[in-house]
Amino acid sequence: MASIFTKIANGEIPSYKVASDDKHFAFLDINPVVPGHTLVIPRRESDYIFDLDDEEYTQLQLFAKRVAKAMQKALPCKRIGTAVIGMEVPHVHIHLIPLNTEGDMDFRREKLTLDNKDMADIAAAIAKEFE
Amino acid sequence: MASIFTKIANGEIPSYKVASDDKHFAFLDINPVVPGHTLVIPRRESDYIFDLDDEEYTQLQLFAKRVAKAMQKALPCKRIGTAVIGMEVPHVHIHLIPLNTEGDMDFRREKLTLDNKDMADIAAAIAKEFE
Repeated sequence: MASIFTKIANGEIPSYKVASDDKHFAFLDINPVVPGHTLVIPRRESDYIFDLDDEEYTQLQLFAKRVAKAMQKALPCKRIGTAVIGMEVPHVHIHLIPLNTEGDMDFRREKLTLDNKDMADIAAAIAKEFE
Repeated sequence: MASIFTKIANGEIPSYKVASDDKHFAFLDINPVVPGHTLVIPRRESDYIFDLDDEEYTQLQLFAKRVAKAMQKALPCKRIGTAVIGMEVPHVHIHLIPLNTEGDMDFRREKLTLDNKDMADIAAAIAKEFE
């Protein structure tokens, strides 16, 4: 059965899309730790990032870099932090998190719920900067 | 002035070395969030991972993958998580963290202090599996 992330990448489940190409998809985390928290996935389902072959792994990391550069331009933050945990959804995903302080990389803090317009505005702002 | 990580990579400051090549160095975090917590750095000093050019970025990510594979073999864990925060030391470093639960990726938990022998044993166990 397709993972929830595959359904998102295929448009079967709606998301706030940030960027995509034929092999990758990036969208806003619906429960961000900070506004702009983005997930980057390969379209091909795989459970564990270090099981990807070097080519697929490299392409995913380079795509994430392009998304991070766009986020940096679009969002008020000092830098973009990254994390891969991968114990929640069995489909590789890289968290990209706009950081203003070290403490912003905190997966235990209460997740935010932004309203639809704010999420759409953030996604559009990042998408506009994506190269 | 050389960063503390450059001094570690050059052997001017002692560390529990895990792996290295001509461009990269990996060593145990001296205050791990869990035992085996490892830092991977490029020998060339740069402050921000997304400022690396694509070639240097890719080589660093591939080196980190090799270290993660070795950690997975050497340590009792379900998978290796990764994080880049980068607001503490202005020299790019990727955290590789052995995870057994989602909550193990927690930079706010009280850091561990292991004794020298345990640190040396962990570093040797990972180094032995590094390919």
